[in-house]
Amino acid sequence: MKKAVVLFSGGLDSTTVLHLAKSQGYEIYALSFNYGQRHSKELEVAKKAALAANVAEHRVVSINLDAWGGSALTDSKIDVPEYNEANTEIPVTYVPARNMVFLSIAASYAEAIGARDIFIGVSQVDYSGYVDCRQEFIEAMENAINNGTVCAVEKGEPIRIHAPFMKMTKAEEVLLGTKLKVDYSLSWTCYNGGEKACGVCDSCVLRLKAFEEAGIKDPLEYENR
Amino acid sequence: MKKAVVLFSGGLDSTTVLHLAKSQGYEIYALSFNYGQRHSKELEVAKKAALAANVAEHRVVSINLDAWGGSALTDSKIDVPEYNEANTEIPVTYVPARNMVFLSIAASYAEAIGARDIFIGVSQVDYSGYVDCRQEFIEAMENAINNGTVCAVEKGEPIRIHAPFMKMTKAEEVLLGTKLKVDYSLSWTCYNGGEKACGVCDSCVLRLKAFEEAGIKDPLEYENR
Repeated sequence: MKKAVVLFSGGLDSTTVLHLAKSQGYEIYALSFNYGQRHSKELEVAKKAALAANVAEHRVVSINLDAWGGSALTDSKIDVPEYNEANTEIPVTYVPARNMVFLSIAASYAEAIGARDIFIGVSQVDYSGYVDCRQEFIEAMENAINNGTVCAVEKGEPIRIHAPFMKMTKAEEVLLGTKLKVDYSLSWTCYNGGEKACGVCDSCVLRLKAFEEAGIKDPLEYENR
Repeated sequence: MKKAVVLFSGGLDSTTVLHLAKSQGYEIYALSFNYGQRHSKELEVAKKAALAANVAEHRVVSINLDAWGGSALTDSKIDVPEYNEANTEIPVTYVPARNMVFLSIAASYAEAIGARDIFIGVSQVDYSGYVDCRQEFIEAMENAINNGTVCAVEKGEPIRIHAPFMKMTKAEEVLLGTKLKVDYSLSWTCYNGGEKACGVCDSCVLRLKAFEEAGIKDPLEYENR
């Protein structure tokens, strides 16, 4: 069975991509990060969901990217903003080069376990200042990986980064996931770490909009709607 | 003053590259990693040396790459081998994609502090299976960084990776460092973490050979010579 490393935060995108990879016959090695997010809810949910999805392995890598702050997701001194459609600035929830760091570590993991496929749930469609969600970046990163790993350079076994949602909207993801029978009650998207999802942060608003557009009921409970 | 992030392990190469960047007028932001090496001596030495070099900042990022083992440097079940000139295999001291992970995190740090220059002390000349020490990799990685950071994509301020020793031997590095008045008694290269350097591991043997070729006395004390 072919192994795949799946970048898995437990959110909507990565939950869907994990089940998509599974449906394509891959044995799943899920990889999550503890990178100084302000709450541990995301990781708790990810652990349960990975277990429920019957992955071969689920690793959590700890890395203190919060060391240099600069993001509301890792710096407890910056407030997480509420959603504002007019805001076209780079969001303060941006962690510098986050996907680059995650993909590098995924490549290290892939090489160590003999996987040649990495899945990531990024989308260019919902891109709002996250430059590391773009197709150009994914291609450049795949090229770097294939110049920096022994499997690719010495054994002629390149690693491929799959970003199947690159051109899909979140609503299309939800439709695809529903077809794949993904249990979205096991996913978590909210930037805040309350018992219920807040319903007002950027991430909650985009998720709710996606379910609405898909015409499917979000099974999560929300504090405010 | 222009800021530079310097990947700094406290070893021969990174000590020399730090002082070279300093001599070129950069303000130094040194970056070290605690990635599950088997001893902490390297980091202790790096901290002292960074302080002595008067850097603007020295960050140590912890990341558990040892989670998947596969390397004698991070896996305590694999013995560090003694030097063997006939060995052309990929060394067991190889950590998958290590420089890729380090450079990704350096890019994150650079973006956060407004640096546009990263220095790394790799050399292709001493390359022995470390595919991520090659010029092709450094160029591919620079390209990935410049497709995955806001400063490069949105502000037109690309980040440059400087690998000034790419075509230099270690002996040439020692000669350069000596010209720059680097105090090599503050550097540490040994794979083992004893009070004195072991003198027999790959890394010690290559260092001693470099000093010998350069005709300069290594100021470090060794257990075996």
